[in-house]
Amino acid sequence: MTLKATALAHPNIAFIKYWGIKDETHRIPANDSLSMNIGCLSTRTTVEYDNLLSSDRLILNGQTVNGEGLHRVQRFMDRIRLMTGQPLFAHVTSENNFPVGAGIASSASAFAALALAGTAALGFDLPERELSSLARFGSGSACRSIPGGFVEWRTDPESSESYAFSIAPPDHWNLADCIVILSKAHKSVGSEAGMRQADSSPLQEARIKDSGRRMDLCRSAILNRDFNALAEVTELDSNLMHAVMMTSNPPLFYWHPLSLGIMKTIKDWQNEGLPVTYTLDAGPNVHVICSQEVMGEVLHRLRQITGIIDVLKGLPAGPARLI
Amino acid sequence: MTLKATALAHPNIAFIKYWGIKDETHRIPANDSLSMNIGCLSTRTTVEYDNLLSSDRLILNGQTVNGEGLHRVQRFMDRIRLMTGQPLFAHVTSENNFPVGAGIASSASAFAALALAGTAALGFDLPERELSSLARFGSGSACRSIPGGFVEWRTDPESSESYAFSIAPPDHWNLADCIVILSKAHKSVGSEAGMRQADSSPLQEARIKDSGRRMDLCRSAILNRDFNALAEVTELDSNLMHAVMMTSNPPLFYWHPLSLGIMKTIKDWQNEGLPVTYTLDAGPNVHVICSQEVMGEVLHRLRQITGIIDVLKGLPAGPARLI
Repeated sequence: MTLKATALAHPNIAFIKYWGIKDETHRIPANDSLSMNIGCLSTRTTVEYDNLLSSDRLILNGQTVNGEGLHRVQRFMDRIRLMTGQPLFAHVTSENNFPVGAGIASSASAFAALALAGTAALGFDLPERELSSLARFGSGSACRSIPGGFVEWRTDPESSESYAFSIAPPDHWNLADCIVILSKAHKSVGSEAGMRQADSSPLQEARIKDSGRRMDLCRSAILNRDFNALAEVTELDSNLMHAVMMTSNPPLFYWHPLSLGIMKTIKDWQNEGLPVTYTLDAGPNVHVICSQEVMGEVLHRLRQITGIIDVLKGLPAGPARLI
Repeated sequence: MTLKATALAHPNIAFIKYWGIKDETHRIPANDSLSMNIGCLSTRTTVEYDNLLSSDRLILNGQTVNGEGLHRVQRFMDRIRLMTGQPLFAHVTSENNFPVGAGIASSASAFAALALAGTAALGFDLPERELSSLARFGSGSACRSIPGGFVEWRTDPESSESYAFSIAPPDHWNLADCIVILSKAHKSVGSEAGMRQADSSPLQEARIKDSGRRMDLCRSAILNRDFNALAEVTELDSNLMHAVMMTSNPPLFYWHPLSLGIMKTIKDWQNEGLPVTYTLDAGPNVHVICSQEVMGEVLHRLRQITGIIDVLKGLPAGPARLI
């Protein structure tokens, strides 16, 4: 019997961001978040358990990984072993079709795919809710890459449970994410480390306190396909997260000068009437969200901007799946 | 008898910023602030009362001003007439030796000089405290350009009084302000209008709540001439104000992409051990604060940066004075 499975998962872009951890042990986020899975971009991960191994091995994008990158995967595999009662170690082979560590949530698709492949290889067919709950222990936002389409990650103040669920399928709204790549370099401070500083900002508590209001605005905007409402709350939420980052101790500046330049350009295009908005994760790349009807125009305009490396495009995508 | 006087006042750069108004009628700021007067830069204002005039006239930098610019001066002159019981209108002639409306507080030096010249021309010799209190009705931060050196503007929650006072003379600490000019254009949203939106940011309340702590840190840093402590709190306070601006409704982005580029460059220089820090008012220009000992080096380095227009320099300056 071969204990092997391959899963594919998409990264997601959050309109309402996750930044800050309320309960480290149970991996409970400081606030609820809301995202869209990004098609075209994906992580494909194969997990093969092997009784000859004395520890897990990781090959990422063709390279053997050791050190902290490996340890993070090993800790996650330990959780699968604990959950399943199965003691075997595994070969983990993972490929991304997009640059790692530059503001596209590679850890989200990576741990979503690993949660699915790592349990399926052992014959487990976990319900989406349990898979999502498991994935968040690898990387918080990975729980949002398990369900499909437009996804909400909600915390229950009464429980240590926390998982994401779909609020609308991928074809609910014809949005597009045009991802302007300004850097393919690894971030100097990764988001896992960065968000552990969130509480050092005098602003984090206020950001969290206001997050329920923003969730409601964003959910309504999505359910009603109201682009202007989505744009307003998405930009505010992105600016709020970066405000917390910039006022943390030590301060974190993920924006490049050109990130800010593109944000200002997007505001100009909005003023022309183009349905377009921006959001930035913990990195310099700018996610330019627009209606698919104007995607060609937006891509054309973005590609004229001096200093950008590339523009990737993604449409709303389905859930993590076995392949 | 000629009812005429000329006064000179310097702009000031705030280490702890004023942003938000608690009481519009009495012009009470939402938080205390702390600044340094900037020498070399100044506004020189002559007020000449004239019983042939039926309204105040304003010539600013050689140009006759009408519209809102004139009305703002007229409202301030009304306050002087009310205060002094003197009904005459005046010719107001004002000259700045620095660009107006681009992040250097031209309204601060302008209304400090106007408060002094406008009362002195009528023979009044107001104490500093009353002059400072008067100046703030023209522009809040103008009250900080009345006293000399390092200046604190404190609000008293028990009173509608509010004025600035010196905590250390100009020669207390050999700091310099190297002002990197990125734009001489007028701001699209002036600071008076911008700060009226401050409460629309979910972050303003938290910024205000934390301001006493920052005031204490900044005051101690100045009194102890502790550059690293000053740098940390100055950058935090600037980032906090811009965080509020960027998350106001509608959002205000005063930074240019190059402003952010220079902020990042300053952090690199700090890491090399150079005693240098940054702060930005409601505009794109970057105030680079350093020790006078390294000013030559800092000016040299700043002038190599592509895209800047000019670098002005200012040393700690004295109070508003008659000339």
